[in-house]
Amino acid sequence: MTQQTAATLHQFINGHWIPGNADELVSTSAVDPEIRVASGKAADTAQVTEAFIAAEGARASWSSTPMAERAGYLLRASAYLNEHAEQFGAELATEEGKTLPEGIGEVRRAGQILSYYAAESERTSGSTFHSPRVGEQILVSHKPLGVVGIVTPFNFPIAIPAWKIAPALIFGNTVVFKPASLVPLLATRLVQAFEHAGLPEGVLNLIIGPGSLGDSIMDQPQLAGLSFTGSTGVGRKLCALGAARGIPVQAEMGGKNASVVLADADLDLASEQVLFGAFRSSGQKCTATSRLILDESIADEFLRKLILRLSQWVTGDPLDPAVHMGPVVDIKSANAVRNGINKAKSEGAEVIFEGLAPKCATYIAPTILGISNDVRGRENTAWREEFFAPVLTLLRVSGSEEAFAAAEDSEFGLSLALFTRDLATAIDAQQRLDVGILHVNSESAGADPHVPFGGAKASAYGPKEQGAAAREFYTHTTTVYLRG
Amino acid sequence: MTQQTAATLHQFINGHWIPGNADELVSTSAVDPEIRVASGKAADTAQVTEAFIAAEGARASWSSTPMAERAGYLLRASAYLNEHAEQFGAELATEEGKTLPEGIGEVRRAGQILSYYAAESERTSGSTFHSPRVGEQILVSHKPLGVVGIVTPFNFPIAIPAWKIAPALIFGNTVVFKPASLVPLLATRLVQAFEHAGLPEGVLNLIIGPGSLGDSIMDQPQLAGLSFTGSTGVGRKLCALGAARGIPVQAEMGGKNASVVLADADLDLASEQVLFGAFRSSGQKCTATSRLILDESIADEFLRKLILRLSQWVTGDPLDPAVHMGPVVDIKSANAVRNGINKAKSEGAEVIFEGLAPKCATYIAPTILGISNDVRGRENTAWREEFFAPVLTLLRVSGSEEAFAAAEDSEFGLSLALFTRDLATAIDAQQRLDVGILHVNSESAGADPHVPFGGAKASAYGPKEQGAAAREFYTHTTTVYLRG
Amino acid sequence: MTQQTAATLHQFINGHWIPGNADELVSTSAVDPEIRVASGKAADTAQVTEAFIAAEGARASWSSTPMAERAGYLLRASAYLNEHAEQFGAELATEEGKTLPEGIGEVRRAGQILSYYAAESERTSGSTFHSPRVGEQILVSHKPLGVVGIVTPFNFPIAIPAWKIAPALIFGNTVVFKPASLVPLLATRLVQAFEHAGLPEGVLNLIIGPGSLGDSIMDQPQLAGLSFTGSTGVGRKLCALGAARGIPVQAEMGGKNASVVLADADLDLASEQVLFGAFRSSGQKCTATSRLILDESIADEFLRKLILRLSQWVTGDPLDPAVHMGPVVDIKSANAVRNGINKAKSEGAEVIFEGLAPKCATYIAPTILGISNDVRGRENTAWREEFFAPVLTLLRVSGSEEAFAAAEDSEFGLSLALFTRDLATAIDAQQRLDVGILHVNSESAGADPHVPFGGAKASAYGPKEQGAAAREFYTHTTTVYLRG
Amino acid sequence: MTQQTAATLHQFINGHWIPGNADELVSTSAVDPEIRVASGKAADTAQVTEAFIAAEGARASWSSTPMAERAGYLLRASAYLNEHAEQFGAELATEEGKTLPEGIGEVRRAGQILSYYAAESERTSGSTFHSPRVGEQILVSHKPLGVVGIVTPFNFPIAIPAWKIAPALIFGNTVVFKPASLVPLLATRLVQAFEHAGLPEGVLNLIIGPGSLGDSIMDQPQLAGLSFTGSTGVGRKLCALGAARGIPVQAEMGGKNASVVLADADLDLASEQVLFGAFRSSGQKCTATSRLILDESIADEFLRKLILRLSQWVTGDPLDPAVHMGPVVDIKSANAVRNGINKAKSEGAEVIFEGLAPKCATYIAPTILGISNDVRGRENTAWREEFFAPVLTLLRVSGSEEAFAAAEDSEFGLSLALFTRDLATAIDAQQRLDVGILHVNSESAGADPHVPFGGAKASAYGPKEQGAAAREFYTHTTTVYLRG
Repeated sequence: MTQQTAATLHQFINGHWIPGNADELVSTSAVDPEIRVASGKAADTAQVTEAFIAAEGARASWSSTPMAERAGYLLRASAYLNEHAEQFGAELATEEGKTLPEGIGEVRRAGQILSYYAAESERTSGSTFHSPRVGEQILVSHKPLGVVGIVTPFNFPIAIPAWKIAPALIFGNTVVFKPASLVPLLATRLVQAFEHAGLPEGVLNLIIGPGSLGDSIMDQPQLAGLSFTGSTGVGRKLCALGAARGIPVQAEMGGKNASVVLADADLDLASEQVLFGAFRSSGQKCTATSRLILDESIADEFLRKLILRLSQWVTGDPLDPAVHMGPVVDIKSANAVRNGINKAKSEGAEVIFEGLAPKCATYIAPTILGISNDVRGRENTAWREEFFAPVLTLLRVSGSEEAFAAAEDSEFGLSLALFTRDLATAIDAQQRLDVGILHVNSESAGADPHVPFGGAKASAYGPKEQGAAAREFYTHTTTVYLRG
Repeated sequence: MTQQTAATLHQFINGHWIPGNADELVSTSAVDPEIRVASGKAADTAQVTEAFIAAEGARASWSSTPMAERAGYLLRASAYLNEHAEQFGAELATEEGKTLPEGIGEVRRAGQILSYYAAESERTSGSTFHSPRVGEQILVSHKPLGVVGIVTPFNFPIAIPAWKIAPALIFGNTVVFKPASLVPLLATRLVQAFEHAGLPEGVLNLIIGPGSLGDSIMDQPQLAGLSFTGSTGVGRKLCALGAARGIPVQAEMGGKNASVVLADADLDLASEQVLFGAFRSSGQKCTATSRLILDESIADEFLRKLILRLSQWVTGDPLDPAVHMGPVVDIKSANAVRNGINKAKSEGAEVIFEGLAPKCATYIAPTILGISNDVRGRENTAWREEFFAPVLTLLRVSGSEEAFAAAEDSEFGLSLALFTRDLATAIDAQQRLDVGILHVNSESAGADPHVPFGGAKASAYGPKEQGAAAREFYTHTTTVYLRG
Repeated sequence: MTQQTAATLHQFINGHWIPGNADELVSTSAVDPEIRVASGKAADTAQVTEAFIAAEGARASWSSTPMAERAGYLLRASAYLNEHAEQFGAELATEEGKTLPEGIGEVRRAGQILSYYAAESERTSGSTFHSPRVGEQILVSHKPLGVVGIVTPFNFPIAIPAWKIAPALIFGNTVVFKPASLVPLLATRLVQAFEHAGLPEGVLNLIIGPGSLGDSIMDQPQLAGLSFTGSTGVGRKLCALGAARGIPVQAEMGGKNASVVLADADLDLASEQVLFGAFRSSGQKCTATSRLILDESIADEFLRKLILRLSQWVTGDPLDPAVHMGPVVDIKSANAVRNGINKAKSEGAEVIFEGLAPKCATYIAPTILGISNDVRGRENTAWREEFFAPVLTLLRVSGSEEAFAAAEDSEFGLSLALFTRDLATAIDAQQRLDVGILHVNSESAGADPHVPFGGAKASAYGPKEQGAAAREFYTHTTTVYLRG
Repeated sequence: MTQQTAATLHQFINGHWIPGNADELVSTSAVDPEIRVASGKAADTAQVTEAFIAAEGARASWSSTPMAERAGYLLRASAYLNEHAEQFGAELATEEGKTLPEGIGEVRRAGQILSYYAAESERTSGSTFHSPRVGEQILVSHKPLGVVGIVTPFNFPIAIPAWKIAPALIFGNTVVFKPASLVPLLATRLVQAFEHAGLPEGVLNLIIGPGSLGDSIMDQPQLAGLSFTGSTGVGRKLCALGAARGIPVQAEMGGKNASVVLADADLDLASEQVLFGAFRSSGQKCTATSRLILDESIADEFLRKLILRLSQWVTGDPLDPAVHMGPVVDIKSANAVRNGINKAKSEGAEVIFEGLAPKCATYIAPTILGISNDVRGRENTAWREEFFAPVLTLLRVSGSEEAFAAAEDSEFGLSLALFTRDLATAIDAQQRLDVGILHVNSESAGADPHVPFGGAKASAYGPKEQGAAAREFYTHTTTVYLRG
């Protein structure tokens, strides 16, 4: 990658690639910010408006296209991504910083998501009901919202857009898509896949530019729904703006996910899974583990196992096959993480482990911080705030009751990993823990296309994503009372 | 009723009936505002807070009670309502103004809704999925939101509270319920049914008072969800307040529902159904027909039939068995309707029919206004704004295309009645018309407990109500990855 | 009961109670065969034919009655059973021999089943699908079979008929019902409940008589489906007769259900649940535990706990409140059990425990037989054959693998109870054990109306019963391709 | 094709292609029986036994393979079929006699079916239910039957095997597959696709030989289920044999499908669709139209339109692009059809139309026979018996009531096509007509992979095929009561 010339970034509006009208926008390598990955001009608000007009223009025709035909576009785009998985995966690793296998895997995952939603054309479209009145039956069918805005973060630059765009399209919506400005190249690749698939003009539009374009999106009269993944602050604002206009908003926001290892856990399995959950992708997953809750009785042994694994964990250039973990996405993020760690230390957190990392500006070494199990410990920044980095905050507790209470001690409720061998404890956790995703004996991260994804409490707003849950957001129902 | 003494109104907080701390609140007869139906002191905001504290206190225990046991409370409350349907129905007719059969029917409907949701304990609780990973399975289960606020309007003073409270409770939420201040007696009756059923303290709390208490509800820290039915203005405000705090809000708001009678319709059926849809309950249903779209070719004949029926339609005391239609709910509403009609006339609407009604302040005669099928006609207040009254605005069109376009010419999209004998037209309507409820050959009003109820476009926000749709609002899902 | 005069038994054909045309049929007390519970004349084959003609005559009208109206009959019959639960429960205890609380409980369970199926009118009636062809949609709806024959055993004389008749009726079938000749009175009570509910003539017909009438049922030209519970021999014959005519048959037949207690089980819980599973209702449940598989490491301790419980277990008159277990249903059954025990002993089975029981002909003392864990032990009659009696055959094994293999070592596969605390073992059992019903940490017997009931392997033929599974048997689907 | 050498036929047992041990079996061209398409030796019963032993050997491993992995085999086999669609389609046209586009289309359909069932790994695997008991939940999961026999007919030599084998495999069963001896080559192609996909040894076994091998299949001790499509006589026999052993059998058998054209139908559409339904594939579809019921008022006009279309219908070599219809499958079939037509004529049927066809032994000209609408007409062979040929029997009726009654006047109930524009009539048909498949305004033939396929009355036995219905046959459920 490093020797290649930077790709050119354009807006994709009404089926055409056009230059932006605003400032220069440059996407750089996560490893070396001096290296340009892609560049072009950002869109201005007039171009946002154009994109919405294009999407509105395509709406009626697209929503009346048979779903099986819409599925064809998704399948062809899926095949295109699979064919280019190596190239796009390398671009992803360069632009975002995750390792090459993770990058390629994410591109393939995007392809899988598209084919999963293509199969929606073969699932039930609705239900019928008996009517209490003679000669009448009742049908419940699903209708698209209309023009949907999609605003995505940097950390899964092609999978998250895929899992929002695919259901939006298959259910008959048209889309205006604004990716994070840090990862415009992968967004472009996804849109190219749909272009290659022959998607009609205006059905999918791409707007590249700074986060402030999000406000412009909320102003558009055609906007009929918004799906957002990103920070809690921005998400809350968009939700309120949408609600005030009567526009449904789905927001996936912050997390502070715990892994809980109980006294009876399989510690080899647990230490492997906690390693993956906390440090893969440099901890830059919404579902990454950032809190570690250990039963005292196994805490030392578990830590020995985890640290042994971490000592073999290689941080470095994500394109290097020997590397387990790359940098964080950019210098700004890295500095914020460093500040966070320092603040945590100043508040009393102890550094239990700090691994090796290249001495470049965007690398954060894998780190374990310990806090005390008391009020002051629980107020520590490292316990409360999302770092989005390879930093794990450890709390020692006694027994499953205390462990569960500690796990729930967060405004967030996205994901939680529980390690136990006990049937009753597993069932109890399932029924009590207020999270969107509960892993019993596997890492906190991960999402399959066919099951609901999303958080509880402050982690999310609106219907869950993926699986059958996506239909709840991207459609509304019509109840038809049918009488001859 | 008229000779009875007024009932006493109390708040119901944490299982106890207690007097309000604020101003006197009086519920009066819709027929004669001089007659008191019930009175007591309104709650102040401190009592709202107490109610939320009570609901929060009951939350953990209630949500872990087996659903079959929760169902038992609903079944007993349902039986209580059915046993008292005559009495409560008469009170409803007096307080709200609909006819006695409609009042009794509504009480029975409330009972039916409770038993429908009791049966939720025998429906599926979730789904399981295959995992792509060996030895793993995925379960999706549903969890309650927590403490839910319920704010209801005057027009279905027991049915609407029932269809919000029943799913809230069965899915494990606890409730703070604030009914419209015009109909506190029926709200009290519903709460008494649950009290009689032995519902644990704090699970359901009643707050009686002015609409401004709604703001106080939005401020409570325990609030985890709000279900509202009422005006678009208030609804939008509550939605935005909720979204800004991350609290899900479900709002059913305005409508301007059309009945469309095409050239091939069964005119006897259609005229009967339009009569019911437009004038029953004095047009004070969210789903009432307030726009009438007639194909020119049958317009005169249809109107003849409709007016013939209307000429036999008796408006008067709702407790009189000979009466088809009572007053509107109060003088303020009646005056607003009169102003609306006058404004419509001043904007060019023609009075096509005006029926007879008692000369009392709260009666509105059944009225048909005609507008011209041009830009000016379409701007008429009577075409655009919800009167919530027995007033029908007529537009003549040519053909189904023009009829459908006229029907969609509204910011609202709650309910629509289509009269046709043609299979292709019925299917076309089902697929194209963007409403929440479509009636083919039946009146626009009506809602069965077992199917989704709610609107499209500006008529609603959030998941639909009733049937299986209710679970989408009153719960969120946890995706459990389960590995041994 | 004992002093009452015997009830009179009649056939119920086309809405009328008429005497049978064949031999005298007498139902006697399980405790004392000298006491007549009910008597009358059995039906002859001509009356079977009459019943089918009546059912066919009622078919078209019944199947086109709205399901909500059909549900009304079920609800009224349910209420009738609940009102008479004490009386009918005592009759049941007398006629069949189970204890009074079990008898009353069964009558209430029958009522619950009826109300569960009444609620079918509020569940989905079918599904809709997208069509790959423009302008087309696909609906899948359910149609009744027609006239259904229902043949039931003695051991749940009202619950089993209820769980067959209720779905048959709610889905629009008409019924000819032939109960076991040992328990005609309870069958009569169930039919009376429907008569009291006002069920139209011919919709449900009762034929009382010997088992040989079953063959006559299979010959009837109107027969469109048969649901049978009883012995494997009779079941297999009916299945083959039905299949040869193209008539669907659902048969619940034999079982030899195991309880498996692993090394890590909660032995107090397990010993209580095995006691209930093996000895309640004198072991005369299809789902009763008749094989006990113990991990060697806990076998002695478990047996001590079980035998301690058994030593406090009172066998005697089922109407006596102090009694835990009554007789078996009649002398013939009791003698067959005694012969079976003797045969088992002659084949090498050891009597590990034999409890106390009254010295009357129909009582069988609770018995535990031990067999050796080798080929010869596994061939023992007590391991292979269903005794339908309070007899438990014990095998000691080592580890869960061997325990699971032993549990599966049976031609039958109805129910299995597993006692363990280990999550992985529970999941493994769920995925591997080929039974219709698996209880993890509860007794092998029990069936809830809202979930599928029935066996794997030789225990059953055709779709499961109860819950949503019942629709698979009592209806077939029509796939409707609908184009305008 | 004609110049190619004949392909060699082998058995596929336990992952190996081996010669049969019995007599020579030759597949010939439908156009010219002198041309060999494929040949080899048939299996003997010992080889059937070997195949079952192989399937049993593979069973445990296959059923515990994650479904997502099983799906991979189906997807790869699907891709293989799509890649070879042209070649296999031509072979199909030659061996079976349908036109080349139909042959290619069928191969692609087989590919689509495989990918549809691959997606089963992303659908729900089961449901969970609330338990009335504290701390308990209930799961319903699905288990494979075991070794399944699949016996298929000649007329869809690759699509029907695909829609039986794909669900059998995806749900975890292993298979012994015996195709019709007339079309062994296409069966071989399908099995080769799975071999190419890397399917483990023994999971799918192919047995080629005469129909009598079906009896041998029924004798195998490992047989756990049989899916059959073919004649009613054979089907009934297999059903009875299976039932007597307790083995579930799914049988799709005969049909005598009607197209009903009512007075208000779109006659252009109807005549086109009746043409397709009756004459495509030489009428050799289970769902082909063989009875035509015309409302008198439009009968003449409809016939004019249909005969006009038929006069442009070209019968001839199926590989010729100008040809609409090929021969029937072999001389024996053709002679049976000729005898049937002669018998019908001798019973009074009138030849209304007879088209042109090559004068070769296997061609049957498209034919319309008329019968009188009276008892004698209704007894005509051409009204009662399935010819499986391009022969349409016409009945004139008056009104929809009489039309529906005539349509139902058959022992069969597979498919029915109704042509009407009237909403009430369409709904009435949906609710009343007892068929498995109802087409409103489209031809009687056709089947989509995602919806249930199969007949009512004597046309079928056991659960429907395709769509979600397939799971009802290829699995049984386990109800798991789970307590910690």
